[in-house]
Amino acid sequence: MKYKGKLTLVGAGPGDPELISLKGIKALQQAGAVLYDALVHPDLLQYAPAEAPRIFVGKRAGHHHRSQQQINQLILSYALSYGHVVRLKGGDPFVFGRGQEEVEYARIFELEVEVVPGISSATALPGLQGVPLTCRGINESFWVLTATTRGGKLSRDLQQAAHSAATVVILMGMRRLRQICDCFRQAGKGQTPAMAIQHGSLPHEKVALGTVDSLPQEVAAKQIGTPGIIIIGEVVGLHTASLLKWAHRQPEPTSPSFNPFIPTS
Amino acid sequence: MKYKGKLTLVGAGPGDPELISLKGIKALQQAGAVLYDALVHPDLLQYAPAEAPRIFVGKRAGHHHRSQQQINQLILSYALSYGHVVRLKGGDPFVFGRGQEEVEYARIFELEVEVVPGISSATALPGLQGVPLTCRGINESFWVLTATTRGGKLSRDLQQAAHSAATVVILMGMRRLRQICDCFRQAGKGQTPAMAIQHGSLPHEKVALGTVDSLPQEVAAKQIGTPGIIIIGEVVGLHTASLLKWAHRQPEPTSPSFNPFIPTS
Repeated sequence: MKYKGKLTLVGAGPGDPELISLKGIKALQQAGAVLYDALVHPDLLQYAPAEAPRIFVGKRAGHHHRSQQQINQLILSYALSYGHVVRLKGGDPFVFGRGQEEVEYARIFELEVEVVPGISSATALPGLQGVPLTCRGINESFWVLTATTRGGKLSRDLQQAAHSAATVVILMGMRRLRQICDCFRQAGKGQTPAMAIQHGSLPHEKVALGTVDSLPQEVAAKQIGTPGIIIIGEVVGLHTASLLKWAHRQPEPTSPSFNPFIPTS
Repeated sequence: MKYKGKLTLVGAGPGDPELISLKGIKALQQAGAVLYDALVHPDLLQYAPAEAPRIFVGKRAGHHHRSQQQINQLILSYALSYGHVVRLKGGDPFVFGRGQEEVEYARIFELEVEVVPGISSATALPGLQGVPLTCRGINESFWVLTATTRGGKLSRDLQQAAHSAATVVILMGMRRLRQICDCFRQAGKGQTPAMAIQHGSLPHEKVALGTVDSLPQEVAAKQIGTPGIIIIGEVVGLHTASLLKWAHRQPEPTSPSFNPFIPTS
C-alpha cells in the first residue's frame, strides 16, 4: 500500500494567531488542503493558498462529530487528491493532541510525514498570566495531565500529582473541577493557590484566581467554561494580581556603583 | 522609582530558528536592544533593527559568566537607554527560564512588561522524534523536571517521578544521567524505553535511544553532551526507529465503502 502524498502536522499554538511558528506559516503556505480543529484561530487559514480546501474536523456542539478514524481517512484522502495535507491542531499536536494516531495511520500508507511543533497551552497560558510553571526557590517541576481518560474516568495520575511538589497543569478538566479540587483538598492542599483560564491568549480571555478551596466558586462567578486549563501550585501566588505585593518588596541589593542609566557590559 | 521603558520576554523556541512565533519576530523587529542567551539561534538576531545593540548574556564555557542580578540590571539599563529591550531566551521564558526573576525586577522599577511564549524543548523535541508525550492507551500525563536544583543536588521530585505513570522529561540532566537512570532502575524501570536528545530540531541533532538500563552507554556511544533532554516512558517505544513495527501492523478497519481517492465530508 504505497501512496504518494504528504502530511504535515502543525501546532497552531494556544489561541492568539500570532503564536504560531514561522515554520507553521510556511507549511500552510504550501498546503494543498487544510484539515483544522475547533480551537484553531480562523485567521490562520488565510495563510493557505486560495484554492486549497479548508475542512473543519473539530468537535464542537452543533457540528457533526467525526471519529478519529474518519479524520485519519480524510487525511489520507486529501493527501492523495491534493498532494499535501496540513493538519492544523490547537496547541502542540503531541500534547494530548492525538497527533500520534494520525501519524501512525499516515505511515501505514507510507505518506511522507512532517511535524511542526506548536506552543502548548499548558506551558504558555500560565506564563502569559505572570505565573511561571517553575520558579527557583518555590518548585522544581511541573506535571501536565488530562483530567478525563479514554474510559471517561478521572485519571489515576491526578491523585499522585496532588501529593507531589510539582506545579500541576490540568487540560480538559473544567467539567470535573469540583472532583479535581476535592482530590487536592484530600491531599491537604485546600489553601494552595489555584487558577483557571479560558480562551487564554485571546482578547476574551477569562481568568479565575483563588485557592483549591475557592476555585470552583471563582470559576462559577466568572462564568468560565470549557475548554479551559487549571493550574494548581504555589507559583500561582506569583500571578500579576499580586502586583501590589511586589510594589512593597524591596529590589535586590544593587552594587553601590550601579547606575541604571549607563549600560554596563 | 518610576522609569520609562519596556521589557519584552520572548521565547526563541527549541533551536530551529523557524520555530519562533510570529509574535516573537514582531517583537524583535521593534527592539531597541536585544539581550540573548547561549541557546538562541544567531539567525534570530537578524530580525532586530540594524542599529539595535545585541548583547550576549548567556552562560557558556569561555565567556564571562554573568549573575542573574547582573542580567536584571542590564535589562533595566538598556530599557532606559534604548526604550525597548527584547530579552530573547531559548525555549519558553517560564519553563526553567528564570523569566520570573527578570519580570519581577523590571516591575519593581515599573517598566512595562510583555511576554511572548515560546515552544518549549520539553514538549517539542520528543514530538519531532516521533515520540508523543502522551498517547491514548499508553499514558495520561507528562512530568517535566530539571535534574539539578538551586542547591546543586538531584531534585527530590525525580524519585517521585520515577515511581509515577507519567512520561518523564528531564532538562539540564545530561551530566547526571547515571544518577537519573539509577533512580529509575531502583523504581523497577530498568527496561522502560528512554532517550536523550542534544541539539534537538537542528541539523546536527543527536539522538540516543534505548532503555533506562542502556541509555548511559548509548549516550556515550553517540557522544551526546550537554545541553540535552532526557525522556523516559513507554511512549519512547513509539520512536520512528520502530517504524518497521508499524509497517507490519494492520491499519484500523475501514468501512467497506471507504475509497481513499475520493475525499469524503
